[in-house]
Amino acid sequence: MTRIAHLLVAVAAVAGVVANSAPASGHADEEPAPIFGIKIPPGYRDWRLISVAHEAGNNNDLRAILGNDVATEAYREGKLPFPDGTIIARLAWSYVVSEENNKVFGRAQSFVAGPPINIQLMIKDSTKYAATGGWGFAQFKDGKPADEAVHKTCFPCHVPAKVRDFVFTRYAP
Amino acid sequence: MTRIAHLLVAVAAVAGVVANSAPASGHADEEPAPIFGIKIPPGYRDWRLISVAHEAGNNNDLRAILGNDVATEAYREGKLPFPDGTIIARLAWSYVVSEENNKVFGRAQSFVAGPPINIQLMIKDSTKYAATGGWGFAQFKDGKPADEAVHKTCFPCHVPAKVRDFVFTRYAP
Repeated sequence: MTRIAHLLVAVAAVAGVVANSAPASGHADEEPAPIFGIKIPPGYRDWRLISVAHEAGNNNDLRAILGNDVATEAYREGKLPFPDGTIIARLAWSYVVSEENNKVFGRAQSFVAGPPINIQLMIKDSTKYAATGGWGFAQFKDGKPADEAVHKTCFPCHVPAKVRDFVFTRYAP
Repeated sequence: MTRIAHLLVAVAAVAGVVANSAPASGHADEEPAPIFGIKIPPGYRDWRLISVAHEAGNNNDLRAILGNDVATEAYREGKLPFPDGTIIARLAWSYVVSEENNKVFGRAQSFVAGPPINIQLMIKDSTKYAATGGWGFAQFKDGKPADEAVHKTCFPCHVPAKVRDFVFTRYAP
């Protein structure tokens, strides 16, 4: 290869490394979210996978639902209601076409996780959050909580899932 | 409620419990897959999330890519090539409309993980798998390996990702 080609390969490799580097956990010292007063639980990004989904429409995301140990074990045992201490984290990323994958598959079919959109949390504490089915709710984007208006909408939206303890996501085996 | 209504609620609750129960890990004593001789690694279902994707077309799936500790740490450090001992597991489930969620969102937009389709594995051992870029490949459905013809297609498909050590998936922060 020419010297310029070597240089371009090196730059591409560095860009790949930078793009792939990512921190392991949330920041526990950030501002709590409104109404329920929830902070980002440290280490949530390390939790186990409950399931995945795609929300089209205004969301246009790919999402993963992660659970802490209490959540994951309750899901696997089929335990309802979820015990106090359950935390469920819904991570959402932009729904992005992968041209690179499409070339490999030979057709336009591949959609991958792009930039992060936000995270949402449900924390079970049947005493503290008795007014909202035992659950506290929170939404964060780039470590910053969403506003109070957003947090007023969480529980009403989850009420239709009351028979499953207000949780929509099912476990993906 | 009437007695019949109570009975129906009880049956629904049991069905919900059965549907939600799921085993925690793979079975290490199963038949190895062809060519690379890989068995399902125990506990893969507990591994950390690398990213998520949707493959349309013939796949019609939602997928999660999980990594063991070596894989996850390499991804987070942006380390290429992946070290020996890296294992990446791609889990795929059917891409299923969620009518229940659509009612909540008020529009047709929600797609969730349905029944499992299959799992694929990449295991890094640069000595054992030197002929295929240092990677062994395997595909399993319901614990049973796919046939030899399928396993011949794995590495050629991954060759276009050579600059990222044959791995397509990027880390989703």
